Formats: sequence, C-alpha cells, structure tokens
Amino acid sequence: MMEMLLRQCSKEFLHFAACLQPCRLQHCGQGHGRPGRFLVSRLFQPANLWEDRELGVEGRQGELTCRSQRLMLRAGLIHPASPGCYYYLPHTLRAVEKLVRVIDQEMRAIGGQKLNMPSLCAADLWKRSERWDLMGKELFRLRDRHNGEYCLGPTHEEAVTELIASLGSLSYRQLPLMLYQITRKFRDEPKPRFGLLRGREFYMKDMYTFDVSEEAARQTYDTVCQAYCHLFERLGLSFVKVRADTGSIGGKLSHEFQLPADIGEDRLLICANCSFSANVETVQAGEADCPECHGKLTETKGIEVGHTFYLGTKYSSIFSASYNTPQNKPAVTEMGCFGLGVTRILAASIEVLSTEDSIRWPGLLAPYQVCILPPKKGSKEEEAAGLVDALYDGLGEAVPALRGEVLLDDRTQLTIGKRLKDASRLGYPYVIVAGRRILEDQPHFEVCCQNTGETVFLTREGVFDFLRNVQTV
Amino acid sequence: MMEMLLRQCSKEFLHFAACLQPCRLQHCGQGHGRPGRFLVSRLFQPANLWEDRELGVEGRQGELTCRSQRLMLRAGLIHPASPGCYYYLPHTLRAVEKLVRVIDQEMRAIGGQKLNMPSLCAADLWKRSERWDLMGKELFRLRDRHNGEYCLGPTHEEAVTELIASLGSLSYRQLPLMLYQITRKFRDEPKPRFGLLRGREFYMKDMYTFDVSEEAARQTYDTVCQAYCHLFERLGLSFVKVRADTGSIGGKLSHEFQLPADIGEDRLLICANCSFSANVETVQAGEADCPECHGKLTETKGIEVGHTFYLGTKYSSIFSASYNTPQNKPAVTEMGCFGLGVTRILAASIEVLSTEDSIRWPGLLAPYQVCILPPKKGSKEEEAAGLVDALYDGLGEAVPALRGEVLLDDRTQLTIGKRLKDASRLGYPYVIVAGRRILEDQPHFEVCCQNTGETVFLTREGVFDFLRNVQTV
Repeated sequence: MMEMLLRQCSKEFLHFAACLQPCRLQHCGQGHGRPGRFLVSRLFQPANLWEDRELGVEGRQGELTCRSQRLMLRAGLIHPASPGCYYYLPHTLRAVEKLVRVIDQEMRAIGGQKLNMPSLCAADLWKRSERWDLMGKELFRLRDRHNGEYCLGPTHEEAVTELIASLGSLSYRQLPLMLYQITRKFRDEPKPRFGLLRGREFYMKDMYTFDVSEEAARQTYDTVCQAYCHLFERLGLSFVKVRADTGSIGGKLSHEFQLPADIGEDRLLICANCSFSANVETVQAGEADCPECHGKLTETKGIEVGHTFYLGTKYSSIFSASYNTPQNKPAVTEMGCFGLGVTRILAASIEVLSTEDSIRWPGLLAPYQVCILPPKKGSKEEEAAGLVDALYDGLGEAVPALRGEVLLDDRTQLTIGKRLKDASRLGYPYVIVAGRRILEDQPHFEVCCQNTGETVFLTREGVFDFLRNVQTV
Repeated sequence: MMEMLLRQCSKEFLHFAACLQPCRLQHCGQGHGRPGRFLVSRLFQPANLWEDRELGVEGRQGELTCRSQRLMLRAGLIHPASPGCYYYLPHTLRAVEKLVRVIDQEMRAIGGQKLNMPSLCAADLWKRSERWDLMGKELFRLRDRHNGEYCLGPTHEEAVTELIASLGSLSYRQLPLMLYQITRKFRDEPKPRFGLLRGREFYMKDMYTFDVSEEAARQTYDTVCQAYCHLFERLGLSFVKVRADTGSIGGKLSHEFQLPADIGEDRLLICANCSFSANVETVQAGEADCPECHGKLTETKGIEVGHTFYLGTKYSSIFSASYNTPQNKPAVTEMGCFGLGVTRILAASIEVLSTEDSIRWPGLLAPYQVCILPPKKGSKEEEAAGLVDALYDGLGEAVPALRGEVLLDDRTQLTIGKRLKDASRLGYPYVIVAGRRILEDQPHFEVCCQNTGETVFLTREGVFDFLRNVQTV
C-alpha cells in the first residue's frame, strides 16, 4: 500500500521535474535579465535611503548615533525593528555570512568543532550556577505554556557544561575538546545603541574548551587567543589585546580584543614602553605607571570585539563535567570560554575603516567584491556596452573565485558619476568603469580600487589578471 | 594621539602575527594528527551512545519516539536540552549547513534575496494583524526591562510587511520582490515530540513575496513551488504536493509539501487516477471520491516539510505595503509566503531513508561523504597502512570537491568489522576499506557505497575517478 503510494509520488514528482527547467528559465528571464546576473536595479538595497530622508526610529528619537550606525542606516544595510533589534538587509547578511566562514576556518584550524545549542535555556541550569540571580535584568526571561521558566541564552557556559556532564566521562584522549557555535544571542541591554555595536539581539561566536589540567587549559587559552589574532590580521584590522575583568562569567584570567576607536565604550591603558595593555577596570584607580616596566600608560578608547576567559573549574565542578585520567579515575575538567561578537565585528570594522560619507569594508567581508558600471544610455561610450557585458559574463569564467561576487550597475539612465558616487558610498572594493578609454583601438577599462584609492586602466585580460589576486571567502 | 596609538597597536599586532604560524602548527601537531585531518578518534560524536545506555529525557519520560529520533539520539547526532529543544551535535550541524546551502542555491536561482529579521517581535505588530490573540498559547511571549511586550517570532509576515511599508513605496519595476531568511523559529508546541520533527525551537526558511497583481502573485507562487520541487528532487526525496488549509497564516490558496511516512501527523488523500491530492483537512468529511475526476481517493500519512500560501493583500493592506504603478499611483502589493522546515527536512529524510539500525542521508547532506578505514593494528594488512594514509592525503588534491569531506577512522585498535558497523550506522555514503586485496601486487581498495548497497574494488586512481562523480554542496 505504502509502496503503491510511493510510486504515485514518484509519478507526481517526475511530472514536476519535467516542467521544471523551462519554467525556471522563463522566470529568470522575466525582469531579472539573464539568469545568474546580479543587477543593481533588482537589489533590495534601497539607494534612496541615502537622501537623509530619515534615520528610522533612532533618528526620530534623537538618540546618539555613531558613524557605522549612520552609514549602515543610510545605505540600507540595516533597518531598525525595535530598540537594539535590527533587520539585517541583504548586503549586511552577505558580509555576516562571509565573516562566519572566516571564523569557521580559524576555529577549525585549531581543532574547533561546531555545534548549536538552544536559545531557550531552562532556569534550573542557570540557578545551579547562581547566574539566574546574578544576571538580573540583563536576562530576557519567559515562561512556557506549562509555566516552566526559561531565559534566552546570552552565553552558554551552563548549557555546554551540562551537555558534557550528561554524556558521561570523557576520556583524557579526547581532550582538549573545543566546541563552538555561532548563533543569535539575547541580552536586555539597559541602553541599546550605536546600531549593531550594542544591540539586544546579535550574533556571537562562543567557544568552550575542556582540558585535563590548568597547564593544558592555559595552553589552549593561548592557542585560541592566537587564532583570534590571526582572524583580525586576515581582516586587516588594527587591534589590541588587553587584560580584562572576568565580570559575570567568572574565572581566573581574561583578555579582551579591542579595536581602538573614539566611539568605543571601553577605556584602555597601553604602555608605550612594553607590551602591557589593560582595560582600565583592571587597574587601581589613579595608577599612571605601567605595573610591569613603570613606563607611562596612555589611555585610549576601544570597541570590544572579542573576550576570552580561563574559567578553571567554576562551571565544570558545579555540573560535574569530568574526564577519565590515564589511571581511569574521574577528574574535573578545566574550562575556557571564548567569545567573538560577530555582528559587532562587522559594525566596528565599518566604524574604523569608513569615512564620514563612504563605507569601507575589510576586503574579505565586502558584500560584493566588484561592481561594473556600463556606459550611460545615450552617451558616446554606449557603443561599447557590449564589451562591458562581455567583461561581466567572462569574469566568472576567468576568475572562478569571483563567481557571485560581481554586481552590474544596470541603472544606465544615471550618469557614470552618480553611479560611481553610490558605489563609493557602498564601498565595493573594485569598481570597473567603461569611460573614455573604452573607445580606444585597444579598449581599456578603468578599475578603481576603493580600499587603496588607486585607479588603473586595464584591458579585458588585464582586468582578469588583476582580479585573480582578490582574496575571497 | 590616536595615530600614535594605532602605530602602537600595529606593533602589537605584528608581534602577534610573527609568533602565529609556528604556534598554530605546533598545536595542530599536538594530539590532532597532521593539520587538516579529520580523525574519528577526535570527533565529538560520542559513539558509546550507541550502547542503548539511555535515550536522554525522552527515554526516561517514556514518550513516543520515532525512527529518526531514536537513531539521532543513539548516534550522538542530537541531545535533548528541554522538551522540544535539542543540542545539534557536530554531524547534525554539518548536515544542516549543507541543507542551508542547497536552499540558498534554489532560492537565489529564482531571484530570492536573503535577509535576517529579529526573533524578538514587538507585540504591537502582532496586534495589528490580530494574530497576537489568534495564536494563543503557541506564541512564546515575554517582557523586556521596560515592560515592553514581545513574542519570539514563529513566522514573520508582520515583520517583513512592516519593513516594506516603512521603506516607502516600491516601484513596480522592483517587483516581484522575493525576500527570505533562514533562522531559528520558536513555537510553544503543546506536545513537542519526534525529536527534530516537532520541536519548540527549530530552523525554518521563510520567503515572502511582493507582486503587482493577483496574476503576477500566482505566477510567483508557481515559481516558488517549482523551486521546492527541484529542491526535493536534488535531495532524492519522494514527496507529494497537496492542497492545504491556510490555518492561522491566512490567505486564499495554500499547498503543503509532504514526505509520505507512517509516522506522519498529516492525513493525505491522493487520487490514483488524476493528479489531485489534498490534506484531509481541506476535504468534506466522508468524501471518498476525487472532486476532479471522481476517481477513488486513497489515504496516506505524511510529514509536512514545506508550506506555501498565496496571501493576497491580507497583510499588505493592514500595514500599507504598497508600490507605485507605471502611472505613478500607489497600489497595495499582493503577497505570498513560503516555508520550509529546515531541521524538519533533515529529520524527515532520516525517517524515510534509514533502516531500523542504520542512518541513511540524502547524499548531498551527509555530514561527511567518505570514511576511510585503515587496517587494524597488528593485522596482516597493517603493512599497507602507508597506502591508506597516502589515499587519504591524496584525495583532497585529486578531488577538490571532497576537501573537508573525508574522515579517517583512526581507531585502529578496533577491528575493521566493528568500524564498518559504526560507519554503516552513521551512514557515510562511501566507506573505503583496506581489506585483503590491499596486499595484491596492484593494491585494491574496497569501496562500499552505502546508499546503493554496492561494493566495488578499485585501485588508488580508480578510487579517485570513482569519487569525482560525488555531488557535494
């Protein structure tokens, strides 16, 4: 009987499959240009937002804003929903997904394994660690239909330690164990502000590590810190790693990764003499000299983009997360936890790299690497429009890494100048223009490298060679 | 001053960068085997769970379970947190991420643009659509520190329509506009059960479309339905598309995509004569004949994995989501919404493809495509261990699509038989064994294709050629 139905289903299915290809092509042809093309005119990335018409909720309420928030609101990258909660519009989500891939690569390189823990965390777990009370109003709390109490996880020390404990003892051979997730987190901030820099709903990478001893845990701690350094290096961001307070997470040792910026909410003390640097919270009030070399400390502000903790057995002893020693005796694991603010790194990058008017992205994270501007309708250069089309179509073939990374600004009713301005504001790393030199005997394209300010004139093959060096993820 | 500090930071940064490479390599060498290797002994995928020791919360509470839940719990793919909430362990997350990539490809192919909407949805929005009351206990509700009321979004018709409305009128040239997200959703199910099939926290793909007219919206509706068919075809799943009720979402027209399965919670009526098929909810009680051809209807059960709605102006008129006509007059958009249960598709696939004992995945979604078993320590075949190592190391080079897709089951203290059994239970599509024929003059590997049951003996080059046909995503 079931078999008969399955046959029936397959019949249905073949029917659908048969009608599929033509329909799909037909649709793509319909207002979308050729299939697979990314056309600016079709992007849901409202350019008219640039007109300073409004800045949404924030603007109306006259709240403080910062450069990244202003730029991201104006460029249609984010849109406010409720305080501290944003729609991430398509350009932003592309950048976030790229950042997630870079983080995955770095975490995997040191042996990290990715999993996913629920947002709904039972109150009981948080009561056992005493953080249910400690966290106060920062926790979003709710009850289900059976009156069970939950919070929305801002971080997952309790959940991951309970997971390890409930699986029974690990073998010492399995350690160090490094588990991480990249998920949406929730925190009921008293003052959500600065766009994605301090929201109530945000993406965070949180890694939790389990080791056999304090010594091993400290080595793992260093390994993860080095991976963080490598990550920020790949993004081309200047950062400082500072000694930090352990706050509500707890533990014995902690560092923050900070991007120096005037808008930063953390005050940092940096020694001009040695490598000492610390969050001012960890330094005794009034101290002006470096505790290590007695050099002079200078103060700057920073945006916290990462935070690392050596936890010791704070959580593992409460939840009994243990392992078996080589002598087959149970012992409590030594833990670390390691956070990266994913959406915050994105906004902080825009904050430190952009100008007042124009967004600049870490090259790897730009939503699209290349934007091509065909000549204006009715211009002299229009006769070379075919060359631009061919460049666009050939690029994905010639440089496979750029497939899906190239936009065509088909709004040819607008001047090149107007479209260049938009492209500059949105910060695509490479903008290719069909200007005067497209009409030369050997046609040349103008390639503007927005991250360096450089402009070069290249033939079609020259463009391909040039763009082969672009790093993508 | 800031400049001085930035220089300081760069110095710090160079310091980190310099010490980076050696440290990273050192760590990878430490207990992880060579860098980049995926070793079964290091996976957080607790094999001892197979011993039927326990089935976690569900087992203890004696709840109903189904095949996919049993298999996923036993194999260490999921672990219960609270009712209807699961940890997705690493194998599961890899499969989910692959499914997300397939869905992205299909949605992009029809012009879908991906964004991300907040989970916290203001009560006000839901009151305007009257769903705040209508949804009753299924909504998770909470208050923030300022007593503002929110729900955790189970679906986002209100949020997306408000987004479109707040951006001002769209141009008719921008339509059809197809926006989608793949995010965690929340629903306070009265009876969460069957593992990932009916949870309270789950991943869903929800697409929302905006069109100029009913005719255009119905065409878009068909386009998305065809993309769904193509998706299930690529996953190799037999499915039926049935007429469905519009439920609390509302609208004028609705279909469900169902995988026929005994465990399914939906009752479907399928005509053996014509293409009619419907959820029993949409058919008058007692009706036994097909309303279209008067053929006999047979009943089966199905797991709902997708649901499509043509909404008309139900939401767009409430929130004033409008567009400008070619005559520059405002008009209300016609909407559709289209859901796919991401984690449910994964569990339902396992439900319909697996045997009682062994998980089988849609080929594209298997967490790893290949598992290689080196000879047992102390066996005759051990002298050929170098060949297996070389096969593992050469595979990523010879078949780039398989990079990161190959596991080495280095638990050589176990027999080949024991490890084959584990590999069969976990369902890697291709298992490669160094058996007797590895010692022949021309060494042959044994390749077990677990999805077809076929076994072939191949030389090293033969293995590479054979695996070049494996589809990956």
